[in-house]
Amino acid sequence: MAKNKGPRRPKAETPKGFRDYFGAEVTARKAMLDRIAAVYHRYGFDALETSAVETVEALGKFLPDVDRPNEGVFAWEEDSDWLALRYDLTAPLARVAAQYRNDLPTPYRRYAMGPVWRNEKPGPGRFRQFYQCDADTVGAASVAADAEICAMLADALEEVGIPRGDYVIRVNNRKVLNGVMEVAGILDPAEPTKFEHERGIVLRAIDKLDRLGVEGVRALLGEGRKDESGDFTKGAGLGDEQIAPLMAFLNAPQEAMARSKQIRDFVSNTKDDGSPINVIGGQGVAEEFSRLFAALLRAPNESPSPANHYWNHAALSTLREIVGESSEGKQGTSELTEIITLLTAQGYGPDRIIIDPSVVRGLGYYTGPVFEAELTFEILDEKGRPRQFGSVAGGGRYDDLVKRFTGQAVPATGVSIGVDRLLAALAAKGRLEDAAQGPVVVTVMDRARMADYMGMVNELRTAGIRAEMYLGNPKNFGNQLKYADKRQSPVAIIQGEDEAARDVVQVKDLILGAKLAVDATLEEWKSQPAQVEVPRADLVATVREIMGRHG
Amino acid sequence: MAKNKGPRRPKAETPKGFRDYFGAEVTARKAMLDRIAAVYHRYGFDALETSAVETVEALGKFLPDVDRPNEGVFAWEEDSDWLALRYDLTAPLARVAAQYRNDLPTPYRRYAMGPVWRNEKPGPGRFRQFYQCDADTVGAASVAADAEICAMLADALEEVGIPRGDYVIRVNNRKVLNGVMEVAGILDPAEPTKFEHERGIVLRAIDKLDRLGVEGVRALLGEGRKDESGDFTKGAGLGDEQIAPLMAFLNAPQEAMARSKQIRDFVSNTKDDGSPINVIGGQGVAEEFSRLFAALLRAPNESPSPANHYWNHAALSTLREIVGESSEGKQGTSELTEIITLLTAQGYGPDRIIIDPSVVRGLGYYTGPVFEAELTFEILDEKGRPRQFGSVAGGGRYDDLVKRFTGQAVPATGVSIGVDRLLAALAAKGRLEDAAQGPVVVTVMDRARMADYMGMVNELRTAGIRAEMYLGNPKNFGNQLKYADKRQSPVAIIQGEDEAARDVVQVKDLILGAKLAVDATLEEWKSQPAQVEVPRADLVATVREIMGRHG
Repeated sequence: MAKNKGPRRPKAETPKGFRDYFGAEVTARKAMLDRIAAVYHRYGFDALETSAVETVEALGKFLPDVDRPNEGVFAWEEDSDWLALRYDLTAPLARVAAQYRNDLPTPYRRYAMGPVWRNEKPGPGRFRQFYQCDADTVGAASVAADAEICAMLADALEEVGIPRGDYVIRVNNRKVLNGVMEVAGILDPAEPTKFEHERGIVLRAIDKLDRLGVEGVRALLGEGRKDESGDFTKGAGLGDEQIAPLMAFLNAPQEAMARSKQIRDFVSNTKDDGSPINVIGGQGVAEEFSRLFAALLRAPNESPSPANHYWNHAALSTLREIVGESSEGKQGTSELTEIITLLTAQGYGPDRIIIDPSVVRGLGYYTGPVFEAELTFEILDEKGRPRQFGSVAGGGRYDDLVKRFTGQAVPATGVSIGVDRLLAALAAKGRLEDAAQGPVVVTVMDRARMADYMGMVNELRTAGIRAEMYLGNPKNFGNQLKYADKRQSPVAIIQGEDEAARDVVQVKDLILGAKLAVDATLEEWKSQPAQVEVPRADLVATVREIMGRHG
Repeated sequence: MAKNKGPRRPKAETPKGFRDYFGAEVTARKAMLDRIAAVYHRYGFDALETSAVETVEALGKFLPDVDRPNEGVFAWEEDSDWLALRYDLTAPLARVAAQYRNDLPTPYRRYAMGPVWRNEKPGPGRFRQFYQCDADTVGAASVAADAEICAMLADALEEVGIPRGDYVIRVNNRKVLNGVMEVAGILDPAEPTKFEHERGIVLRAIDKLDRLGVEGVRALLGEGRKDESGDFTKGAGLGDEQIAPLMAFLNAPQEAMARSKQIRDFVSNTKDDGSPINVIGGQGVAEEFSRLFAALLRAPNESPSPANHYWNHAALSTLREIVGESSEGKQGTSELTEIITLLTAQGYGPDRIIIDPSVVRGLGYYTGPVFEAELTFEILDEKGRPRQFGSVAGGGRYDDLVKRFTGQAVPATGVSIGVDRLLAALAAKGRLEDAAQGPVVVTVMDRARMADYMGMVNELRTAGIRAEMYLGNPKNFGNQLKYADKRQSPVAIIQGEDEAARDVVQVKDLILGAKLAVDATLEEWKSQPAQVEVPRADLVATVREIMGRHG
C-alpha cells in the first residue's frame, strides 16, 4: 500500500515561459519608460491604457502582419464570447480608434506602455509576457507625422541614456520596393493582385539576403537555388531584365555609400563660396537633390561614414534611379525626401537619422515609410566576439488597420520600442540608474526597546533616507548582518544596552567593511574604521555623511 | 436572396466589463502610484512584478478568503496545464515567497502594483480588470511589522494628498474576536475545529450588524430571527451568558467612546504636575494602561473625538475586559498594545491610527492584526446627501498563505490600497495633478512651409514646452482650431504668408479666448487681446509668458 502523504501540495512555479521581476529589474525598467513617456508627452502624445483582454474578433484572427502568421494568442471562451490577451499594442489601438472615432481628436497621437502576451514556444530569453512601448499617430496622412515619429524616437533614445553617435534611425519606404517591383514587371498598378505569387517569392528571397548572399538571392529570383545539401528550391522564374532592378535595389546601400564618398571627396575640393562646381554621382542627380545638397554645404558635418551629411542625398539619388518611372516608386522617394527635409530643418541630420534601402524587415506589414532604430556600439556576444548591438525599435506607416472595423481607411504611423532590448543595451553601456541600493538597517539588540529602534528608523526616513528596522527573529545577531548584506544595505545601526545607557549608537559602514574584508592591510583596517560610535543625536548626520562618501 | 454584404466587420468594442483609460486617467493614476511607491521604497520595500498569468494550481482553487468564495478567475487550458489571470497580488506573492525562499531575504518586504482580473458579473463602476497596490512583509512574526505597515499607510495617504485629519487607520485584531468567542464558549483552544458551525453563524451575524442592528444580531446569536417578510432564520442557539460577551464586543466602540470621554474629563481636572489622581474607567485599568496614560499626559493633544489621545487606551481597556482570561484574547490585546506603543514612539498618535473594535470585515481571512484606512471627509452621494467617503485600503496578518506550498507556516502581514477608490477620493478633494493640459498647437497655414512649422515646434519642445504641429489636413483652418480646442491646448501659433514675410507669428491665448467668449464685454475684448503678433524670435518667450499667466 502506498504511504499516505496527505493532500498533494501545489507547485510553487511561474508558468512555463513566464517570469517574475524583482527590485531593480522593475524600477530600472520603470525609470526608462518614465523617461520615454516624458518625451512622448512633450511631443503632444497622450497616454492610453487599454484593457489587457480583447475579444478575439477585435484582435483579428488574421493579423495583417504576414511576417508572423503562426504566432498565437492566449484565448478562452467566456459566455459564448472568445476572449484573448492582447498580443501587441497596435491591435487594441486600431480597436480604440474605431470605437471612439467620434470622440477622439483627429489626428489622435497616443502612446502606450505595458505587457503583451504571446502564446509561443518559450526559449532562452524569449518569454510569453513582455513589455512593449508604442507611440502612434492615427489620422494623419502627411509624412510629417512619420518624420515626427523619427525625431521623437531619436530624442527618446538620448533621453534614456544612449548618446548621439551610438544609435542611428534607419528610414526606408515600402513604396520604393513596390516601385522596384513595378520596374521589374512583377507589380502592375492597374491590377494589384497579379503576380502575387512571384512577389511572395521575391520578398522571401530579399529577406534571406543576410543568409544566402547576393548570388543566392539572384538564383531564387531566377530559376531556383540548390543548397549545400543538394536540395533544390524553385525560384520566381524572372528573366535577367526583371532581375536587374531588384539586384540594383539590393545593391543600393553599396551604391549609395560609393556616391556618398564621391560627394565627400567633391566637397573637400569645393570652392570657398560653397557653390557646387560639378554634377555629383554621374547620372540622374535631380534638381531637388541639388537644392538639398546646396543647403548641406552651408552646414557641413564630417561625422563618421555612413552617418555623414552626404549619405542621405546619395541614397535618395540612388533610389530615384532604381525606381525609374514607377509612379509609386517616385512617390516613395519623394516621401523620403520630404521626411529628410523636415528632419534636417529641425536639426536631425544623418548623424541621427539616415535613409537606408536595406531596411526591409516587416515591409509586408507596412504601407509607406518604415523606420528602425539601431544601436551601433559593439558588445561581446556569448562567444566573446564583438558585434553591433543591433535593433531596439521599429515602426512605420500602416494605413489599413482601422479599416477592418469601419470600412474606411485611416492613415496611421507609429513606432514600437523593444523594452527588454533597450534595457539590455542600457545595462551593457552601464547606463542603468542604480536602483539597487538597499535600505539602512537598524538592528535589534534588545527586544524591549523596539520603540527606540523604530524611532531611529523614523528619523532616517523623515530625512529621506531609505531605512528599516530588522523585523526577523533578533536572537542571532549574525543573521541580522547577513540580512543587511543580502539587502545590499549601505549602513547598519547598532545600539545595545551599553550604548543605550550612554546615549550613543554604533554606525557600521557596510560598503567600506566589504571592501576592507577583500583587500585591506592591517594598517588600513586601523586607519579606516568601518564602524564608528557617535552620539544618538548625530545618527542621521553620520549616516548621511557615510552614504555621501560612497556616492 | 439576401443581399451580399461582403465579409462581416468585427465589432470595435471593449469586452464586457473591461474599459480603456485615456490621457489624464492614465497619468493621474500613475502619478499617485509613483508617490506611493516612493514611500514604500523609503520604508525598505522592494518592487516585485510577477507575471499576470499563474497556474490555477498555484493560485489555489480554494482561496483562503472565505469572504469571496464565488469570485471566479479567467482560466484556460494550455498543453494540459490550466492557466489563469491573477485575481489579486497576494496569491502570486505567496507563490514567489515559496518558489524563491532560498534566495529572498528574510523578512522579505515587497510592494507590487498592477492590474488584477476577476471573472465577475460586471456592474456600474465594477470592472473585471482593475489596479491593486499592495505592500507586504513576509517572514516577520513580530507585530512591529504590522505597526510599520500602519505607519507606512498613513505616510502614503499623506504623500498622495490626503491631509492629516481627513483619514484614519483603524486597527483591530482577529485574536480579540477569537478571545471573545472563547469566553462565549464557542471556541475551545484545545479542540479548534469544535463549534465551527456556531462560529460561522456568529461571524455572519456580526458582519450584518450595519443592516440588522444590535437586536437583529442578538436574535441571530440566540434562537433565530424573523424578518419583516415573516421569514425565519435559525440562530446559533447560544444562551444569554454566551451572548453577553459577544454583545459586549459589539458594544465595545460605544463603551470605548464613553471611557475616552471620561479620560478627557479627568485630564482637564488633573493636577498641575500631571499625576493621575484617580482610577479611570472604573474597573480593570491595567498597569500598562496606566503607564501609557502617564506618557500621554506628558503630550496631551485635544484633537477632535474619537481621534484623540485617550481613545486608544480606552479601547484597549474595554477589549481587555471583554476577552477576560482567554489566552488568545489576551495575546490579541497585548499585540494591539504593542502596535500602539511602537506607533506612538514614532509620533503616529490616535489622530492618525486608532484601535477600533468595529473593524471586523475580512476577519475570516486574517489571523492577527487587521487594519483599514478610512477617509473621514464628507462627499455627496448620488442623491446629493453627504456621507463619509469611507474605506480606501485594508490589510492585516495572514500567517498561513505560504504553507499551502511548503507545508511550513510563514508569518506575513500586508496592506492593499484600493487604487480606484483612492483616485476617486483625490478627485473629490481636487487633489489630482492636472495632467490634462494639452500641447501648444502650431497650425499649418502654408503647406510648403511645413519645415518652418516643425522648426517652431522643435524650439518649443527644446524649451520643455509640450507642443505639436497640426498633422491633419490643413485645408480647413477652422478644423485646426477645433482640434486645438479638443486637445485642451493653451496656445495656438499661426503664421501665414504675410506673417512669414514680416518674420512674425500670431500667438493665440486659447484659455483667455475661451473665457472672453463666455463673459467678456466689448471693452474687455479690446483691452485683453487673446491674440498677439510678436517677432518670430520671441515665439518661445511669448508662449511661456502666456502659459505662466494661467498657472
